[in-house]
Amino acid sequence: MKPVTGPDFDSHELIPAIAQDAETGDVLMMAWMNRESWQETLTTGKVCYYSRSRKKLWRKGEESGNVQELLSAWFDCDGDTLLLKVRQIGGAACHEGYRSCFFRRVLPETGGRIFREPTGMRGPPSTKMHD
Amino acid sequence: MKPVTGPDFDSHELIPAIAQDAETGDVLMMAWMNRESWQETLTTGKVCYYSRSRKKLWRKGEESGNVQELLSAWFDCDGDTLLLKVRQIGGAACHEGYRSCFFRRVLPETGGRIFREPTGMRGPPSTKMHD
Repeated sequence: MKPVTGPDFDSHELIPAIAQDAETGDVLMMAWMNRESWQETLTTGKVCYYSRSRKKLWRKGEESGNVQELLSAWFDCDGDTLLLKVRQIGGAACHEGYRSCFFRRVLPETGGRIFREPTGMRGPPSTKMHD
Repeated sequence: MKPVTGPDFDSHELIPAIAQDAETGDVLMMAWMNRESWQETLTTGKVCYYSRSRKKLWRKGEESGNVQELLSAWFDCDGDTLLLKVRQIGGAACHEGYRSCFFRRVLPETGGRIFREPTGMRGPPSTKMHD
């Protein structure tokens, strides 16, 4: 196996990128990056994903204002996942207005019955869908 | 769009699952789940992934002993990513012996030069590769 020296865009056109609130440790969202969005993120210091649905760069917060400022970037042992520690501007990463997209919890003991557990303030849904 | 009532294995055969240390908040790893591994995880309370490389269920820690006990499970707003808050047994989620697989950091200001930053103890590499 070749040594892991960075996110492996040679083997994977798209790589999952996990955004984590650098201050609270909350996992905010997961979206995808291609080489171009990764390079733009490193250059600008603002997180830019690649939208699979819209098939173009997705500059997070470009319309909502909920920009993610990159504080540190990490990749995993096999170079196929990114972890981005960010400062989430605007208080909400989720287009549904929650701080984190992971606001729905599964109750294993009930075989997967779900309840909604907001992890932050809810505002008007943005028109931008996640990928 | 249909309402999101759980991880959407109808639309996605495999869904990324993020494992987060429930106590420290550290993101430990990302791997994949199919419907079967998800159901097994809910049933047993121990995290079971699906290995894309080995094309079979991957019962995390089955050989290394580094089991992940599921404390809570969350899915995101569009139902295509899981967040698992776990208790990591054995101190290391990573087959390279680190607590987290995300032990390599990118320095954006150097255009992506990398240095290794262990996030936990390092032990003998496990024979189990990540997906």
